[in-house]
Amino acid sequence: MSSTRDIDALIEMMARLPGLGPRSARRAVLHLIRKRALLLTPLADLMQTVAATARECLRCGNVGTTDICDICLSEKRATGELCVVEDVADLWAMERSQVFKGRYHVLGGTLSALDAVGPEDLRIPQLLTRVEEESITEVILALNATVDGQTTAHYIADQLDGRVRLTSLAQGVPIGGELDYLDDGTITAALRARKDL
Amino acid sequence: MSSTRDIDALIEMMARLPGLGPRSARRAVLHLIRKRALLLTPLADLMQTVAATARECLRCGNVGTTDICDICLSEKRATGELCVVEDVADLWAMERSQVFKGRYHVLGGTLSALDAVGPEDLRIPQLLTRVEEESITEVILALNATVDGQTTAHYIADQLDGRVRLTSLAQGVPIGGELDYLDDGTITAALRARKDL
Repeated sequence: MSSTRDIDALIEMMARLPGLGPRSARRAVLHLIRKRALLLTPLADLMQTVAATARECLRCGNVGTTDICDICLSEKRATGELCVVEDVADLWAMERSQVFKGRYHVLGGTLSALDAVGPEDLRIPQLLTRVEEESITEVILALNATVDGQTTAHYIADQLDGRVRLTSLAQGVPIGGELDYLDDGTITAALRARKDL
Repeated sequence: MSSTRDIDALIEMMARLPGLGPRSARRAVLHLIRKRALLLTPLADLMQTVAATARECLRCGNVGTTDICDICLSEKRATGELCVVEDVADLWAMERSQVFKGRYHVLGGTLSALDAVGPEDLRIPQLLTRVEEESITEVILALNATVDGQTTAHYIADQLDGRVRLTSLAQGVPIGGELDYLDDGTITAALRARKDL
Protein backbone atom coordinates (compact mmCIF):
# COMPACT_ATOMS: atom_id res chain seq x y z
CA MET A 1 0.00 0.00 0.00
CA SER A 2 1.40 3.31 -1.07
CA SER A 3 1.73 6.20 1.35
CA THR A 4 0.59 8.43 -1.49
CA ARG A 5 -2.78 6.70 -1.73
CA ASP A 6 -4.69 9.75 -0.45
CA ILE A 7 -3.10 11.84 -3.18
CA ASP A 8 -3.95 9.17 -5.78
CA ALA A 9 -7.52 8.99 -4.47
CA LEU A 10 -7.81 12.78 -4.67
CA ILE A 11 -6.60 12.76 -8.28
CA GLU A 12 -9.07 10.01 -9.14
CA MET A 13 -11.96 11.89 -7.55
CA MET A 14 -11.04 15.18 -9.21
CA ALA A 15 -10.81 13.39 -12.57
CA ARG A 16 -14.49 12.49 -12.25
CA LEU A 17 -15.56 16.14 -12.28
CA PRO A 18 -17.08 17.35 -15.54
CA GLY A 19 -14.46 19.19 -17.58
CA LEU A 20 -11.51 17.46 -15.91
CA GLY A 21 -9.76 14.31 -17.09
CA PRO A 22 -6.91 12.31 -15.55
CA ARG A 23 -4.23 14.68 -16.85
CA SER A 24 -5.86 17.92 -15.77
CA ALA A 25 -6.82 16.34 -12.43
CA ARG A 26 -3.14 15.52 -11.82
CA ARG A 27 -2.12 19.07 -12.71
CA ALA A 28 -4.84 20.54 -10.50
CA VAL A 29 -3.87 18.33 -7.53
CA LEU A 30 -0.17 19.17 -7.87
CA HIS A 31 -1.12 22.85 -8.02
CA LEU A 32 -3.28 22.44 -4.92
CA ILE A 33 -0.53 20.63 -3.01
CA ARG A 34 1.98 23.33 -3.90
CA LYS A 35 -0.40 26.02 -2.69
CA ARG A 36 -1.55 24.04 0.31
CA ALA A 37 -2.11 26.86 2.77
CA LEU A 38 -3.36 29.33 0.20
CA LEU A 39 -5.65 27.11 -1.83
CA LEU A 40 -6.07 23.50 -0.72
CA THR A 41 -7.11 24.08 2.89
CA PRO A 42 -9.49 26.99 2.11
CA LEU A 43 -10.98 25.00 -0.77
CA ALA A 44 -11.57 21.99 1.47
CA ASP A 45 -13.17 24.20 4.13
CA LEU A 46 -15.40 25.89 1.58
CA MET A 47 -16.48 22.53 0.19
CA GLN A 48 -17.40 21.37 3.69
CA THR A 49 -19.47 24.53 4.21
CA VAL A 50 -21.23 24.20 0.86
CA ALA A 51 -21.85 20.48 1.41
CA ALA A 52 -23.48 21.31 4.73
CA THR A 53 -25.56 24.29 3.58
CA ALA A 54 -26.40 23.94 -0.12
CA ARG A 55 -29.98 22.99 -0.89
CA GLU A 56 -32.58 23.27 -3.63
CA CYS A 57 -35.06 26.11 -3.37
CA LEU A 58 -38.38 24.45 -2.49
CA ARG A 59 -40.23 26.85 -4.76
CA CYS A 60 -38.18 27.25 -7.95
CA GLY A 61 -35.46 24.53 -7.80
CA ASN A 62 -32.54 26.98 -7.82
CA VAL A 63 -29.50 26.04 -5.74
CA GLY A 64 -28.87 28.16 -2.68
CA THR A 65 -28.29 27.96 1.03
CA THR A 66 -31.85 28.64 2.20
CA ASP A 67 -35.12 26.74 1.81
CA ILE A 68 -36.48 29.51 -0.40
CA CYS A 69 -33.82 31.12 -2.60
CA ASP A 70 -32.83 34.79 -2.74
CA ILE A 71 -34.50 35.32 -6.10
CA CYS A 72 -37.85 33.92 -4.92
CA LEU A 73 -37.64 35.99 -1.72
CA SER A 74 -36.52 39.23 -3.37
CA GLU A 75 -39.10 42.00 -3.35
CA LYS A 76 -37.46 43.67 -6.33
CA ARG A 77 -38.49 40.82 -8.61
CA ALA A 78 -41.59 41.05 -10.80
CA THR A 79 -43.97 38.39 -9.46
CA GLY A 80 -46.03 38.04 -12.63
CA GLU A 81 -43.26 36.76 -14.91
CA LEU A 82 -41.96 33.23 -14.61
CA CYS A 83 -38.97 32.07 -16.65
CA VAL A 84 -38.84 28.28 -17.14
CA VAL A 85 -35.33 26.81 -17.57
CA GLU A 86 -34.03 23.26 -17.81
CA ASP A 87 -31.21 23.53 -15.35
CA VAL A 88 -29.70 25.67 -12.59
CA ALA A 89 -26.79 26.44 -14.94
CA ASP A 90 -29.31 27.98 -17.37
CA LEU A 91 -30.80 30.07 -14.54
CA TRP A 92 -27.30 31.32 -13.70
CA ALA A 93 -26.70 32.16 -17.38
CA MET A 94 -29.94 34.19 -17.47
CA GLU A 95 -28.96 35.98 -14.25
CA ARG A 96 -25.56 36.92 -15.69
CA SER A 97 -27.30 38.80 -18.52
CA GLN A 98 -29.07 40.85 -15.80
CA VAL A 99 -31.98 41.59 -18.10
CA PHE A 100 -34.73 39.38 -16.66
CA LYS A 101 -36.37 40.81 -13.57
CA GLY A 102 -38.99 38.14 -12.89
CA ARG A 103 -38.58 34.80 -11.15
CA TYR A 104 -37.61 31.34 -12.29
CA HIS A 105 -38.74 27.76 -12.37
CA VAL A 106 -36.08 25.08 -12.87
CA LEU A 107 -37.42 21.90 -14.48
CA GLY A 108 -34.39 19.77 -13.67
CA GLY A 109 -34.11 18.33 -17.19
CA THR A 110 -36.19 17.77 -20.30
CA LEU A 111 -38.83 15.26 -21.30
CA SER A 112 -37.20 12.36 -23.09
CA ALA A 113 -38.91 9.27 -24.45
CA LEU A 114 -35.52 7.61 -24.92
CA ASP A 115 -34.47 8.06 -21.30
CA ALA A 116 -38.04 7.51 -20.02
CA VAL A 117 -38.26 10.97 -18.47
CA GLY A 118 -41.94 11.95 -18.10
CA PRO A 119 -43.57 15.15 -16.76
CA GLU A 120 -43.70 13.67 -13.23
CA ASP A 121 -39.90 13.22 -13.24
CA LEU A 122 -39.43 16.95 -13.83
CA ARG A 123 -40.84 19.86 -11.85
CA ILE A 124 -43.69 20.31 -14.35
CA PRO A 125 -46.57 19.59 -11.90
CA GLN A 126 -45.07 22.18 -9.52
CA LEU A 127 -44.92 24.65 -12.44
CA LEU A 128 -48.63 24.19 -13.17
CA THR A 129 -49.43 24.67 -9.47
CA ARG A 130 -47.31 27.83 -9.30
CA VAL A 131 -49.04 29.32 -12.35
CA GLU A 132 -52.38 28.75 -10.56
CA GLU A 133 -51.38 29.96 -7.12
CA GLU A 134 -48.93 32.80 -7.75
CA SER A 135 -51.06 34.80 -10.21
CA ILE A 136 -48.49 34.45 -12.98
CA THR A 137 -49.29 36.50 -16.09
CA GLU A 138 -46.47 35.40 -18.39
CA VAL A 139 -44.48 32.18 -18.65
CA ILE A 140 -41.24 32.54 -20.64
CA LEU A 141 -40.04 29.18 -21.90
CA ALA A 142 -36.24 29.60 -21.94
CA LEU A 143 -35.46 25.99 -22.82
CA ASN A 144 -32.50 24.95 -24.90
CA ALA A 145 -32.96 24.93 -28.68
CA THR A 146 -32.51 21.15 -28.79
CA VAL A 147 -35.08 18.52 -29.81
CA ASP A 148 -35.75 17.50 -26.19
CA GLY A 149 -35.84 21.13 -25.05
CA GLN A 150 -38.38 22.09 -27.71
CA THR A 151 -40.49 18.96 -27.07
CA THR A 152 -40.65 19.94 -23.41
CA ALA A 153 -41.57 23.52 -24.34
CA HIS A 154 -44.43 22.26 -26.53
CA TYR A 155 -45.69 19.99 -23.75
CA ILE A 156 -45.71 22.81 -21.21
CA ALA A 157 -47.33 25.17 -23.73
CA ASP A 158 -50.12 22.59 -24.25
CA GLN A 159 -50.72 22.29 -20.50
CA LEU A 160 -50.83 26.04 -19.92
CA ASP A 161 -52.63 26.99 -23.13
CA GLY A 162 -55.17 29.77 -22.53
CA ARG A 163 -54.35 30.16 -18.84
CA VAL A 164 -51.40 32.53 -19.18
CA ARG A 165 -49.36 34.44 -21.76
CA LEU A 166 -46.73 32.07 -23.17
CA THR A 167 -43.51 33.27 -24.78
CA SER A 168 -40.19 31.75 -25.75
CA LEU A 169 -36.72 33.19 -26.35
CA ALA A 170 -36.20 34.54 -29.88
CA GLN A 171 -34.09 32.40 -32.19
CA GLY A 172 -31.65 33.87 -34.68
CA VAL A 173 -28.10 34.96 -35.29
CA PRO A 174 -26.17 35.33 -32.01
CA ILE A 175 -24.65 38.77 -31.33
CA GLY A 176 -21.18 38.79 -32.86
CA GLY A 177 -22.04 35.66 -34.85
CA GLU A 178 -20.74 35.17 -38.37
CA LEU A 179 -23.08 33.59 -40.90
CA ASP A 180 -20.28 31.42 -42.26
CA TYR A 181 -19.94 29.70 -38.89
CA LEU A 182 -23.66 29.20 -38.19
CA ASP A 183 -25.49 25.95 -38.79
CA ASP A 184 -28.28 25.76 -41.36
CA GLY A 185 -31.00 25.51 -38.71
CA THR A 186 -30.00 28.84 -37.14
CA ILE A 187 -29.86 30.60 -40.50
CA THR A 188 -33.26 29.16 -41.44
CA ALA A 189 -34.75 30.30 -38.11
CA ALA A 190 -33.18 33.75 -38.43
CA LEU A 191 -34.49 34.16 -41.99
CA ARG A 192 -38.02 33.04 -41.06
CA ALA A 193 -38.09 35.47 -38.14
CA ARG A 194 -36.61 38.36 -40.17
CA LYS A 195 -37.68 41.83 -39.13
CA ASP A 196 -38.48 44.99 -41.08
CA LEU A 197 -35.88 47.69 -40.65
CA MET B 1 -24.92 40.00 0.60
CA SER B 2 -26.15 36.90 -1.10
CA SER B 3 -26.91 33.74 0.81
CA THR B 4 -25.26 31.90 -2.07
CA ARG B 5 -21.94 33.62 -1.46
CA ASP B 6 -20.24 30.40 -0.31
CA ILE B 7 -21.29 28.75 -3.55
CA ASP B 8 -20.03 31.75 -5.55
CA ALA B 9 -16.74 31.69 -3.62
CA LEU B 10 -16.37 27.97 -4.31
CA ILE B 11 -16.92 28.52 -8.03
CA GLU B 12 -14.37 31.35 -8.04
CA MET B 13 -11.78 29.23 -6.26
CA MET B 14 -12.34 26.22 -8.51
CA ALA B 15 -12.00 28.48 -11.56
CA ARG B 16 -8.44 29.28 -10.47
CA LEU B 17 -7.34 25.66 -10.84
CA PRO B 18 -5.26 24.93 -13.94
CA GLY B 19 -7.45 23.44 -16.66
CA LEU B 20 -10.68 24.93 -15.29
CA GLY B 21 -12.25 28.23 -16.28
CA PRO B 22 -15.36 30.03 -14.99
CA ARG B 23 -17.74 27.93 -17.07
CA SER B 24 -16.28 24.54 -16.22
CA ALA B 25 -15.95 25.60 -12.57
CA ARG B 26 -19.69 26.36 -12.49
CA ARG B 27 -20.48 23.00 -14.06
CA ALA B 28 -18.16 21.21 -11.65
CA VAL B 29 -19.65 22.95 -8.60
CA LEU B 30 -23.24 22.22 -9.70
CA HIS B 31 -22.23 18.58 -10.22
CA LEU B 32 -20.64 18.51 -6.76
CA ILE B 33 -23.70 20.05 -5.11
CA ARG B 34 -26.00 17.53 -6.80
CA LYS B 35 -23.81 14.67 -5.60
CA ARG B 36 -23.24 16.18 -2.20
CA ALA B 37 -23.08 13.02 -0.09
CA LEU B 38 -21.37 10.92 -2.74
CA LEU B 39 -18.80 13.41 -4.00
CA LEU B 40 -18.63 16.82 -2.33
CA THR B 41 -18.23 15.70 1.29
CA PRO B 42 -15.71 12.90 0.53
CA LEU B 43 -13.77 15.28 -1.72
CA ALA B 44 -13.61 17.93 0.99
CA ASP B 45 -12.49 15.33 3.55
CA LEU B 46 -9.82 14.01 1.22
CA MET B 47 -8.54 17.53 0.54
CA GLN B 48 -8.27 18.14 4.29
CA THR B 49 -6.29 14.92 4.67
CA VAL B 50 -3.97 15.70 1.79
CA ALA B 51 -3.49 19.29 2.96
CA ALA B 52 -2.47 17.94 6.36
CA THR B 53 -0.20 15.13 5.18
CA ALA B 54 1.28 16.02 1.76
CA ARG B 55 4.92 17.04 1.77
CA GLU B 56 7.95 17.10 -0.49
CA CYS B 57 10.38 14.20 -0.22
CA LEU B 58 13.48 15.65 1.45
CA ARG B 59 15.71 13.58 -0.80
CA CYS B 60 14.22 13.70 -4.31
CA GLY B 61 11.52 16.40 -4.22
CA ASN B 62 8.67 14.02 -5.11
CA VAL B 63 5.32 14.71 -3.48
CA GLY B 64 4.17 12.18 -0.91
CA THR B 65 2.96 11.83 2.63
CA THR B 66 6.26 10.94 4.27
CA ASP B 67 9.53 12.84 4.74
CA ILE B 68 11.27 10.39 2.40
CA CYS B 69 9.02 9.17 -0.42
CA ASP B 70 8.12 5.56 -1.26
CA ILE B 71 10.36 5.49 -4.31
CA CYS B 72 13.43 6.64 -2.38
CA LEU B 73 12.68 4.13 0.40
CA SER B 74 11.89 1.19 -1.90
CA GLU B 75 14.46 -1.60 -1.82
CA LYS B 76 13.34 -2.79 -5.27
CA ARG B 77 14.74 0.34 -6.90
CA ALA B 78 18.17 0.39 -8.51
CA THR B 79 20.25 2.77 -6.42
CA GLY B 80 22.84 3.55 -9.08
CA GLU B 81 20.51 5.20 -11.61
CA LEU B 82 19.17 8.67 -11.01
CA CYS B 83 16.56 10.18 -13.35
CA VAL B 84 16.51 14.00 -13.28
CA VAL B 85 13.11 15.57 -14.09
CA GLU B 86 11.84 19.14 -14.05
CA ASP B 87 8.65 18.56 -12.17
CA VAL B 88 6.71 16.07 -10.05
CA ALA B 89 4.26 15.70 -12.96
CA ASP B 90 7.17 14.49 -15.12
CA LEU B 91 8.15 11.99 -12.41
CA TRP B 92 4.57 10.68 -12.38
CA ALA B 93 4.62 10.41 -16.19
CA MET B 94 7.85 8.36 -16.04
CA GLU B 95 6.34 6.12 -13.33
CA ARG B 96 3.25 5.44 -15.45
CA SER B 97 5.47 3.98 -18.18
CA GLN B 98 6.73 1.51 -15.52
CA VAL B 99 10.01 1.07 -17.37
CA PHE B 100 12.44 3.01 -15.17
CA LYS B 101 13.51 1.11 -12.09
CA GLY B 102 15.96 3.61 -10.59
CA ARG B 103 15.26 6.66 -8.46
CA TYR B 104 14.48 10.29 -9.24
CA HIS B 105 15.59 13.82 -8.60
CA VAL B 106 13.03 16.59 -9.13
CA LEU B 107 14.60 19.96 -10.01
CA GLY B 108 11.45 22.00 -9.44
CA GLY B 109 11.79 23.94 -12.68
CA THR B 110 14.36 24.91 -15.28
CA LEU B 111 17.10 27.50 -15.45
CA SER B 112 15.77 30.64 -17.04
CA ALA B 113 17.68 33.86 -17.63
CA LEU B 114 14.41 35.62 -18.45
CA ASP B 115 12.75 34.69 -15.15
CA ALA B 116 16.05 34.99 -13.23
CA VAL B 117 16.03 31.34 -12.16
CA GLY B 118 19.58 30.24 -11.32
CA PRO B 119 21.00 26.87 -10.18
CA GLU B 120 20.50 27.84 -6.53
CA ASP B 121 16.75 28.32 -7.11
CA LEU B 122 16.45 24.73 -8.31
CA ARG B 123 17.47 21.54 -6.55
CA ILE B 124 20.72 21.39 -8.54
CA PRO B 125 23.12 21.70 -5.57
CA GLN B 126 21.25 18.81 -3.90
CA LEU B 127 21.64 16.80 -7.11
CA LEU B 128 25.41 17.30 -7.12
CA THR B 129 25.55 16.26 -3.45
CA ARG B 130 23.47 13.15 -4.11
CA VAL B 131 25.71 12.09 -7.00
CA GLU B 132 28.68 12.32 -4.59
CA GLU B 133 27.11 10.65 -1.61
CA GLU B 134 24.82 7.97 -3.06
CA SER B 135 27.38 6.32 -5.38
CA ILE B 136 25.32 7.10 -8.47
CA THR B 137 26.67 5.50 -11.65
CA GLU B 138 24.28 6.99 -14.23
CA VAL B 139 22.34 10.25 -14.36
CA ILE B 140 19.52 10.24 -16.91
CA LEU B 141 18.53 13.79 -17.86
CA ALA B 142 14.80 13.44 -18.62
CA LEU B 143 14.16 17.15 -19.08
CA ASN B 144 11.57 18.54 -21.45
CA ALA B 145 12.67 19.10 -25.04
CA THR B 146 12.24 22.86 -24.68
CA VAL B 147 14.92 25.56 -24.85
CA ASP B 148 14.95 26.02 -21.06
CA GLY B 149 14.87 22.28 -20.47
CA GLN B 150 17.82 21.68 -22.74
CA THR B 151 19.77 24.63 -21.31
CA THR B 152 19.31 23.13 -17.86
CA ALA B 153 20.40 19.70 -19.12
CA HIS B 154 23.59 21.23 -20.57
CA TYR B 155 24.34 23.05 -17.33
CA ILE B 156 23.93 19.88 -15.25
CA ALA B 157 25.99 17.88 -17.77
CA ASP B 158 28.79 20.46 -17.42
CA GLN B 159 28.71 20.20 -13.64
CA LEU B 160 28.76 16.40 -13.60
CA ASP B 161 31.12 15.88 -16.54
CA GLY B 162 33.51 13.02 -15.90
CA ARG B 163 32.07 12.13 -12.52
CA VAL B 164 29.26 9.86 -13.72
CA ARG B 165 27.71 8.38 -16.87
CA LEU B 166 25.34 10.98 -18.35
CA THR B 167 22.46 10.09 -20.66
CA SER B 168 19.36 11.82 -21.96
CA LEU B 169 16.06 10.52 -23.34
CA ALA B 170 16.13 9.70 -27.06
CA GLN B 171 14.43 12.19 -29.34
CA GLY B 172 12.46 11.13 -32.41
CA VAL B 173 9.06 10.20 -33.77
CA PRO B 174 6.61 9.39 -30.95
CA ILE B 175 5.02 5.91 -31.06
CA GLY B 176 1.87 6.18 -33.16
CA GLY B 177 3.02 9.57 -34.46
CA GLU B 178 2.31 10.60 -38.03
CA LEU B 179 5.06 12.49 -39.84
CA ASP B 180 2.54 14.90 -41.32
CA TYR B 181 1.60 16.10 -37.83
CA LEU B 182 5.13 16.41 -36.45
CA ASP B 183 7.03 19.67 -36.20
CA ASP B 184 10.21 20.19 -38.20
CA GLY B 185 12.41 19.98 -35.12
CA THR B 186 11.20 16.49 -34.27
CA ILE B 187 11.64 15.25 -37.83
CA THR B 188 15.17 16.73 -37.95
CA ALA B 189 16.06 15.09 -34.63
CA ALA B 190 14.61 11.76 -35.74
CA LEU B 191 16.52 11.85 -39.01
CA ARG B 192 19.81 12.76 -37.35
CA ALA B 193 19.39 9.91 -34.86
CA ARG B 194 18.32 7.40 -37.53
CA LYS B 195 19.17 3.77 -36.86
CA ASP B 196 20.32 0.90 -39.08
CA LEU B 197 17.70 -1.78 -39.52
